[in-house]
Amino acid sequence: MLEDKKQERTTLEKLGEFGLIEHLTQNFTLQQASSLMGIGDDAAVLDFTDNKTAVTTDLLIEGVHFDLSYMPLKHLGYKAVVVNLSDVYAMNATPTQITVSMAVSNRFPLEALEELYAGIALAAKAYNVDLIGGDTTSSKTGLLISITALGEAKEEALTYRNGAKPNDLLVVSGDLGGAYMGLQVLEREKEVFKVNPANQPDLEPYSYIVERQLKPEARKDIKELLGQLEVLPTSMIDISDGLSSEILHLCRKSSVGCNLFEDKIPLDPTVISSCEEFNIDSTMVALSGGEDYELLFTIDQKDFSKIKGNPNLTVIGHMTDANEGAHLVTRANSKIELTAQGWNSFTSEQP
Amino acid sequence: MLEDKKQERTTLEKLGEFGLIEHLTQNFTLQQASSLMGIGDDAAVLDFTDNKTAVTTDLLIEGVHFDLSYMPLKHLGYKAVVVNLSDVYAMNATPTQITVSMAVSNRFPLEALEELYAGIALAAKAYNVDLIGGDTTSSKTGLLISITALGEAKEEALTYRNGAKPNDLLVVSGDLGGAYMGLQVLEREKEVFKVNPANQPDLEPYSYIVERQLKPEARKDIKELLGQLEVLPTSMIDISDGLSSEILHLCRKSSVGCNLFEDKIPLDPTVISSCEEFNIDSTMVALSGGEDYELLFTIDQKDFSKIKGNPNLTVIGHMTDANEGAHLVTRANSKIELTAQGWNSFTSEQP
Repeated sequence: MLEDKKQERTTLEKLGEFGLIEHLTQNFTLQQASSLMGIGDDAAVLDFTDNKTAVTTDLLIEGVHFDLSYMPLKHLGYKAVVVNLSDVYAMNATPTQITVSMAVSNRFPLEALEELYAGIALAAKAYNVDLIGGDTTSSKTGLLISITALGEAKEEALTYRNGAKPNDLLVVSGDLGGAYMGLQVLEREKEVFKVNPANQPDLEPYSYIVERQLKPEARKDIKELLGQLEVLPTSMIDISDGLSSEILHLCRKSSVGCNLFEDKIPLDPTVISSCEEFNIDSTMVALSGGEDYELLFTIDQKDFSKIKGNPNLTVIGHMTDANEGAHLVTRANSKIELTAQGWNSFTSEQP
Repeated sequence: MLEDKKQERTTLEKLGEFGLIEHLTQNFTLQQASSLMGIGDDAAVLDFTDNKTAVTTDLLIEGVHFDLSYMPLKHLGYKAVVVNLSDVYAMNATPTQITVSMAVSNRFPLEALEELYAGIALAAKAYNVDLIGGDTTSSKTGLLISITALGEAKEEALTYRNGAKPNDLLVVSGDLGGAYMGLQVLEREKEVFKVNPANQPDLEPYSYIVERQLKPEARKDIKELLGQLEVLPTSMIDISDGLSSEILHLCRKSSVGCNLFEDKIPLDPTVISSCEEFNIDSTMVALSGGEDYELLFTIDQKDFSKIKGNPNLTVIGHMTDANEGAHLVTRANSKIELTAQGWNSFTSEQP
């Protein structure tokens, strides 16, 4: 899309740093009661009254975390916000504000950044968070986005990683592996495009998994759902690096073990069919794929009846004593130790 | 310093992302009453009780904001924290927490990042702020640091940019232009080093201005001082981009004009002598140099007697009606319109 020669282009030099921030953020208005002052002073000012404040931050780098050859900038802006909000939801908190910092090389015209901010604005609206600050600067190469998200919660509602107990049930929202398989499809089409630029890919059969990769959503509905069901998770984490890695985080922080049942892992039919097509094991994809942004949490066994049969939630295992370790119980009923195959930006190529 | 071949080197791949964060942050402990949960969960959790929360963020990029050929990594870590805290102090708030995100290319061994974090730890201790989160990832080129700082204040203590009134006095802490002249000295020595690497520069005569550039401090004393003097500024901003640019921010946000008196601008003798040596106008340096991290604020005229003669504070002008504009009144008593010559990363080379 950056290659569209018909677009009007405005260079960033013309606007300068303050002009650029003002231009990009002019349509953002404050909606949250806790936002007293947003962009335009040395710092934003917030008022969380008697709520606790959750703070999380993520850095996304071109060529490491995203590839603009198939990631439209509007989607990128949306996704960059969503991945941060997902961390706030994983605390069982409600996101309220974000700051967005950006470094951009001169190859990006203003219109490209407007697209990026259009995606940020869409996410801010969809999740009802205020853009309250940020920093915009030039970079030597490529695009970089650093977002900090703030949220609020009553102290008693907060869910940490360290509260799981042996015999607690392990529950996941939605389904897993879609974002990773969507990436496989996009990477394949990119290779096809390199060989034959005239080829028009038919992504229709893959629309679910491609959307999981390009426009993931954070599970803002789960906090509300659990509230309605009167279930307070004993621990919670979001799935950004793959189920296996997240389970190991819960186990380590809570000093427990875990049995995860392979046949319980929720998979969308598109994930199963694309795994067959790509000849990849679907369980491996769910365990190590990452970027699904579903919520993984533990509940007391007494709460099982409250969540049973809920289409948004799947019980996939249970916690054990720490000395039993963390294992996948396969369909063939053998036990395989879970290892963190989560993505590591220092050893991996583009995910 | 990265060229010291005797140093042990540990590659980042060995540690991975989680291992790296844990290793670098293991010696940071939470000190602030408002820090309920720091690093190690999906988000940090804070409790600001009945105080308001200030949030600010800055992005520092190698080759744009800093040059590692003369900026030691420990100093860089320190400065990266300080520039953010300065924004919190400019709200008349007390910094309480920081998040630090970092992207690093493989050319940095672990020991380099340890140096960087040693500087961050020094600043966190000096300013009593907790490191509560962050993200660490690889970059394609160079080093990038994104810091978000949080602070707290009673609502009635907060100072915004928009409260200045005509006839208010314009006051600045400390002295100006040092950081810019320090940079000139360092740039000159870098050129000399390129020609003759055996040359040992004598930086002793320039130690004040070099330190202003390499290890600036935020004015944490001013909030306390003003409290003791019982002066509440009507507006406040920190000087990161040069006096001229900051005055124009106050004027625009407060809808006032300003007369700045050239002969009142506080300059250290080292700044004056180095300006002579480099044949640069010292007023231009103070107006446009930037990176001094002093505080610029306005006070009601009735408070003049309270600050008069204080060695930390200098009255440099007064605010006027907006239609009078913002001017420098020169020593020759002519009026020159102030223009924003603050640094713009999109048009400037390395500052």
